[in-house]
Amino acid sequence: MKKNKVLPLKARRDSLELLDQRLLPLEEKWVICNDEQETALAIKNMVCRGAPLIGITAAYGYYLGVNKLIQNKKLVSLKQLEKIKNKLASSRPTAVNLFHALELMHETATNNLSLSKTNPLQLLMLLFQRAVDIHEKDREDCNKMSTLAADFFAKNIRKKELSILTHCNTGALACGGSGTALGIIRELHERQKVSIVYVNETRPYMQGARLTTYELTKEKIPCLLTIDSMAAVLMQRKLVDLVLVGADRISADFGVANKVGTYMLSILCKAHKVPFYVAAPESTFDPQTKSVYDIPVEIRPSSELTEYKGEPVTKGVKVLNESFDLTPAGYIDAIFTEERIVR
Amino acid sequence: MKKNKVLPLKARRDSLELLDQRLLPLEEKWVICNDEQETALAIKNMVCRGAPLIGITAAYGYYLGVNKLIQNKKLVSLKQLEKIKNKLASSRPTAVNLFHALELMHETATNNLSLSKTNPLQLLMLLFQRAVDIHEKDREDCNKMSTLAADFFAKNIRKKELSILTHCNTGALACGGSGTALGIIRELHERQKVSIVYVNETRPYMQGARLTTYELTKEKIPCLLTIDSMAAVLMQRKLVDLVLVGADRISADFGVANKVGTYMLSILCKAHKVPFYVAAPESTFDPQTKSVYDIPVEIRPSSELTEYKGEPVTKGVKVLNESFDLTPAGYIDAIFTEERIVR
Repeated sequence: MKKNKVLPLKARRDSLELLDQRLLPLEEKWVICNDEQETALAIKNMVCRGAPLIGITAAYGYYLGVNKLIQNKKLVSLKQLEKIKNKLASSRPTAVNLFHALELMHETATNNLSLSKTNPLQLLMLLFQRAVDIHEKDREDCNKMSTLAADFFAKNIRKKELSILTHCNTGALACGGSGTALGIIRELHERQKVSIVYVNETRPYMQGARLTTYELTKEKIPCLLTIDSMAAVLMQRKLVDLVLVGADRISADFGVANKVGTYMLSILCKAHKVPFYVAAPESTFDPQTKSVYDIPVEIRPSSELTEYKGEPVTKGVKVLNESFDLTPAGYIDAIFTEERIVR
Repeated sequence: MKKNKVLPLKARRDSLELLDQRLLPLEEKWVICNDEQETALAIKNMVCRGAPLIGITAAYGYYLGVNKLIQNKKLVSLKQLEKIKNKLASSRPTAVNLFHALELMHETATNNLSLSKTNPLQLLMLLFQRAVDIHEKDREDCNKMSTLAADFFAKNIRKKELSILTHCNTGALACGGSGTALGIIRELHERQKVSIVYVNETRPYMQGARLTTYELTKEKIPCLLTIDSMAAVLMQRKLVDLVLVGADRISADFGVANKVGTYMLSILCKAHKVPFYVAAPESTFDPQTKSVYDIPVEIRPSSELTEYKGEPVTKGVKVLNESFDLTPAGYIDAIFTEERIVR
């Protein structure tokens, strides 16, 4: 597995640098977060995005929150820790990796809370290491998932080269490693099994148009950008061998919450007999949520539709801008994780 | 039938004024065309759009071409007339109304060509009247179509109020009259049968976000703007009673070429058991084109995806930007015209 050409995050002892994904691919600018508040705001405002990366970012943000208390010689109490956790947890509601990573950080902090008085630097070291572990685990998970899925395709799909359609961004910009769906595509490309990647632009935030094309271009993987509804036309012309997307949360009934547009793709796949696959780490599973329809869906500002970079596109109109949608298990051919293939 | 609150075109003796639909709803600015060349350019650059309106505009453009020859005391020959016709015909390839209107104008011109020497003003009057007739017929056709379809819904759908999803713009801005699909919605609204209109933003040109919401707001018809792929989510939640769209060309096998995104909607409708209707004047039918798959689909510039108002959205990426898609008859529950309901 070659090194990623794209890196979304740099963790320092006193700060976290996030590649501002809102400006990509036109500008490569870094946003610096110094505490949990700045980190939560960066997540909320989508400086970084992607379910696994949100989890990793929040983990570092938790560390930075405790770091700030200790640097300022403030009390590190259970109440303070909960405040830090809740601040970060309230940044975005849909991806479950966020809550998962925060629980791990919170566990380490509360289990070692006594250190805050006796050896606060030791506590900070433990928390930083915990965040690095979460980050590192995601990197390894991406690799395992890619290998598992690429082996599956080698065994189950006869075509020499595959044309793959994907939605949103699920690559190195969304993860700690090479990506989920896009990580698999990268692995398939290294095995010379990819003829073309069709990239949905992914309205309204254009993660496909801006981020996925950016990564694929850097990795020299051939790709073609189209509007989201062109997916139907590409399938009508039998140009798509498979659809591969990520997930923000997977319910106990194996339904998937993912970027809005995913459910549409699953319906189009069913109608055109194109296999529909999801790739996500195990941390995306949320056994607490029984039905996919119980997953909370984030509603984002109308301005994402009515404006572009602050310039109005339209005016005087009511908007419904849901950021995710819910695809029931029956429309999903398989889910790839770092451990298994759920069919 | 009340008067339209929106007017896309004003025909004068020496010019044609077109409401610049590229700037709506933010600005109401008029573009003036003085001859067939300026008219063809306005159509090509989408100052005006919508299959019936393109036909009407081209008819006036043909008149203006002949008018210019006569004003400049130039010869009106068959060759000159063909040049005018071809210039306008080459503006956009998909909508058949354009070619239909041009044939009618050309017929009038060639049948009366001798007048160009004996009484050129008489020839001009005949041509202007022909264009007005085409315009007027479209206005009447919109009314007939609306009544026919609204009566059909009253008879065939039991719900008191309907929630209707539509794509692109098919209203007064696309026609000589109140519109095709949007004309029907307007008629249903006047009969107090509309609960809400879901408006697809219609990437990449945003005809839904900019034009349909503009018209619906002016007409005080309740509407909600969403991204195109949200249509699937609205149907999943059983919020859509029917989908109603226009058409740019209908083949002999009753397949429909319409704004890209239409085919996706037809698939979503089938999967969710939502009826899918098309509204278009008889002039949209093209019996010469046997199969829907033979209809030529316009490919428009990549910049419609990679830029917004000249500002880059992304860079360095290959784009496939097809402006229309092809929906076979099997996915269409009925086509409404001014004369009949094709089922």
